[in-house]
Amino acid sequence: MNELSHPTPTVTCGPLPASTKIHVAGERHPGLRVPMRRIALHPTAAEPPVTIYDASGPYTDPAARIDIARGLPRTRADWIAARGDTETYAGRRVRPEDNGFAEGDRLTPEFPALPIPRRATKGAVTQLAYARAGIVTAEMEYAAIRENLGRSTAATRDGEAFGAAIPDFVTPEFVRDEIAAGRAILPANINHPELEPMVIGRNFLVKINANIGNSAVTSSMAEEVEKMVWAIRWGADTVMDLSTGRNIHNIREWIIRNAPVPIGTVPLYQALEKVGGVAEDLTWEVYRDTLIEQAEQGVDYFTIHAGLRLHHIPLTVDRVTGIVSRGGSIMAKWCLHHHRESFLYEHFEEICEIMRAYDVSFSLGDGLRPGSIADANDAAQFAELETLGELTQIAWKHDCQVMIEGPGHVPMHKIKENMDRQLEVCAEAPFYTLGPLTTDIAPGYDHITSGIGAAMIGWFGTAMLCYVTPKEHLGLPDRDDVKTGVITYKIAAHAADLAKGHPAARLRDDALSRARFEFRWEDQFNLSLDPDTARAFHDQTLPKEAHKVA
Amino acid sequence: MNELSHPTPTVTCGPLPASTKIHVAGERHPGLRVPMRRIALHPTAAEPPVTIYDASGPYTDPAARIDIARGLPRTRADWIAARGDTETYAGRRVRPEDNGFAEGDRLTPEFPALPIPRRATKGAVTQLAYARAGIVTAEMEYAAIRENLGRSTAATRDGEAFGAAIPDFVTPEFVRDEIAAGRAILPANINHPELEPMVIGRNFLVKINANIGNSAVTSSMAEEVEKMVWAIRWGADTVMDLSTGRNIHNIREWIIRNAPVPIGTVPLYQALEKVGGVAEDLTWEVYRDTLIEQAEQGVDYFTIHAGLRLHHIPLTVDRVTGIVSRGGSIMAKWCLHHHRESFLYEHFEEICEIMRAYDVSFSLGDGLRPGSIADANDAAQFAELETLGELTQIAWKHDCQVMIEGPGHVPMHKIKENMDRQLEVCAEAPFYTLGPLTTDIAPGYDHITSGIGAAMIGWFGTAMLCYVTPKEHLGLPDRDDVKTGVITYKIAAHAADLAKGHPAARLRDDALSRARFEFRWEDQFNLSLDPDTARAFHDQTLPKEAHKVA
Repeated sequence: MNELSHPTPTVTCGPLPASTKIHVAGERHPGLRVPMRRIALHPTAAEPPVTIYDASGPYTDPAARIDIARGLPRTRADWIAARGDTETYAGRRVRPEDNGFAEGDRLTPEFPALPIPRRATKGAVTQLAYARAGIVTAEMEYAAIRENLGRSTAATRDGEAFGAAIPDFVTPEFVRDEIAAGRAILPANINHPELEPMVIGRNFLVKINANIGNSAVTSSMAEEVEKMVWAIRWGADTVMDLSTGRNIHNIREWIIRNAPVPIGTVPLYQALEKVGGVAEDLTWEVYRDTLIEQAEQGVDYFTIHAGLRLHHIPLTVDRVTGIVSRGGSIMAKWCLHHHRESFLYEHFEEICEIMRAYDVSFSLGDGLRPGSIADANDAAQFAELETLGELTQIAWKHDCQVMIEGPGHVPMHKIKENMDRQLEVCAEAPFYTLGPLTTDIAPGYDHITSGIGAAMIGWFGTAMLCYVTPKEHLGLPDRDDVKTGVITYKIAAHAADLAKGHPAARLRDDALSRARFEFRWEDQFNLSLDPDTARAFHDQTLPKEAHKVA
Repeated sequence: MNELSHPTPTVTCGPLPASTKIHVAGERHPGLRVPMRRIALHPTAAEPPVTIYDASGPYTDPAARIDIARGLPRTRADWIAARGDTETYAGRRVRPEDNGFAEGDRLTPEFPALPIPRRATKGAVTQLAYARAGIVTAEMEYAAIRENLGRSTAATRDGEAFGAAIPDFVTPEFVRDEIAAGRAILPANINHPELEPMVIGRNFLVKINANIGNSAVTSSMAEEVEKMVWAIRWGADTVMDLSTGRNIHNIREWIIRNAPVPIGTVPLYQALEKVGGVAEDLTWEVYRDTLIEQAEQGVDYFTIHAGLRLHHIPLTVDRVTGIVSRGGSIMAKWCLHHHRESFLYEHFEEICEIMRAYDVSFSLGDGLRPGSIADANDAAQFAELETLGELTQIAWKHDCQVMIEGPGHVPMHKIKENMDRQLEVCAEAPFYTLGPLTTDIAPGYDHITSGIGAAMIGWFGTAMLCYVTPKEHLGLPDRDDVKTGVITYKIAAHAADLAKGHPAARLRDDALSRARFEFRWEDQFNLSLDPDTARAFHDQTLPKEAHKVA
């Protein structure tokens, strides 16, 4: 184990304004300490505090001792061990190519306190397998408690849910049932014991994902860990590490050991690095090795572009923007070069065997997603979706958890068809969309072009929305872009929760609106998604009257 | 006439990147020079230039001589005079209270080249009156040409228009017919000859409005004129001057004389200033005087809160946010204090007499619009809408042009009801909405919370979207906020045009998408809504491959 040659970098810590981290105990699992954020209001409000969902992890808890060289507490380790269906083992050895052959000063130090990996002794150790067996895991109860936002009473129901069935209260049994039905996933690799479990499904709060990741040219371990901490501070429910540069393996280890949220990856990106960036040189063996490498580290979900088949590729020739998914274009290149069916498709059942041994969830990638308004909802896109539906059934047969990735660039009038088809073709497996962007003409503002589509498709039933930052199509997001992307997508997700009629979503809106109407400025700031910006924008020189225009 | 004691301030001028101002002649009125913006593409594209709608006026024309102390050319003066139904007259004298009793150095100088006002010699001189008489005015042909974006061929139709009937090509006769039917307005005060005419209606391109205006505490004439020029540079189709401080009269004169877009106001704001800010002291006489004052200056549309009736007010008592419209709360205070019906309602026919003598269009204000998600679509809001429907019929009886203002704060699932009811109750008079904001929890980002709602309601049929800036609820927008608000609303309006199936909307998306796919970076920037930001965000250090994730 390497010693760190520099002081351990620090990350952004501390509570948000007027906020206290509270912990709710479980009933079935009394040891659970489920975090929520309680926002105190001014005494003149004569109102109880507002309790909200808290994805930010221990970083916002002043009582937590944060040291990224130690990582977060491995709370789930006991739960996992107690189930008696896994074993520790030596694990795969790290190889030079895992870090892009980085050496010496250019090699990101290994995480100092590497855990020993675990795998299933036999069969599936997935939350889906447990749910089907009627077991309510600690993870399920944990996720259930989070969904209720500390409520003890049901709020007014008012919404149009398009067939979603959101209960007044989420019980652990409800979480189990939704997972068992395949309508929800609880991404929770057994090698990610630092995780604070959460659930993704259309009968739960709409979740959002933030992408981070270094590239060949920029950024370090410290930056990436901070980006993850920063993204969850503002509300990201999961984080995808899309690194493509050197040190992929070591940076990922640092991220996962410090991540209270599920971490997703696109293993194809690292596999491609291992073959020198030449798509044609990819092999099933390199890919398989990468899956195991990342599963042992604790990645919670993998984007796998197994739905892009050789015969789909000709369907893209008349497109305005061809194949824009990076994973999709890599696989299309491979298929065309070898004139063979994709190795991801051909080895799909073997992939399932790996996924179920660690409980890595599938995020079935849409390699043929439209890259422009012109290509939305075309034959290529929907042909791939059909394959994703087939693969969902295969994954379920192996007790693997599955969500389905969706577009992309879609004008408003074609958004609902995406949702409706996905529900039908993929048997209600959770949908996880990128935006969609509702016009192509605003590079620099694609958080907004896509926030419109994200709010709508979230309303229609998408379970998780992958953020788009202002730098989309133009460059790599910095810290400000990550925050802007996350806040924009929290808006979209919350607008969707309101429209679906989530029983508790409106409590925060109403509390903020009362504060606004009563000129309780501090309460208005503190209840907002971004108190810092709201406060900064407030101009003390304004006459009160001007603010009454709401 | 005062001399300016300082050099005349300058405003932002010059073309946008790769853009040329072109002028299209009329057929019925050959002298028309209808402006459009032509964006040149790189020779490697082997594509024709892309021609887009251009609301920016002569400021982006290098051939134009800009001097804000002279104002814009009074192109319409001849058209108006030629109709022979108006007369010049001395006009109302400016009084000290018109400028809030500002004196000496604090008095904004009078505009140096004041025009002589005109009014109808008898009857209505409105575009509606002409349309009903079967006349195609120069204004109508001008607006028709703009809507076609320089096309000579029809593009693919693909959309869901919810009953809107957008033609493949807009003819002058179509504009006339839409105005005659009350489904569109062409706001064009006869005292605003600098105007480049445009049309607002759901069978045309969706338009956006930007609000500017000084307050009691800040900003000058120079700043406000620049804000107007800045707003139209980025695409605002109309501008409302919501000034509430001193010098309202003189600042407005500077704005109108330099405005190629319709200018809207809320006359109640100035009337209130004239009575020292005490709502109870408002009288019909003061209000009427203000209407004439502003009509003579050339304001193109007035927000008039005549739909808020005494018996509606009790409907708001259980609201979370009561009455949030500034005009609404002023009128409610007046009605309650005097326990009388609103003087705006009682004198509505007299108001129509004034409006038709200058062709000021009505923008019937929604003083009871919801100020929070909790209050959306409630009894108060819809009771007022019913009254707006009645007033629409009265205004039409007087040949006055009418649009209807709409909310406000509305969750996604309640947006369509607003549109459907408005169309029914107001007999398809154009709808003009503020947002709506789809959640209350994001002060600092209300351009986004409302951009979502604006795109949706624009799709459903709203003719013009009033922008919301990031400072909404928090402070007064600065130059950057104005730009962010305008760009966000251009996105919403364009997304709506795409979804409605406007025959030419997608041409720009497709051209930009092709540029993106072919890595023609300059073309991608130049075709975007904000080339400067797109270019600035582009990081030259990025490997090309990373950008292929679209």
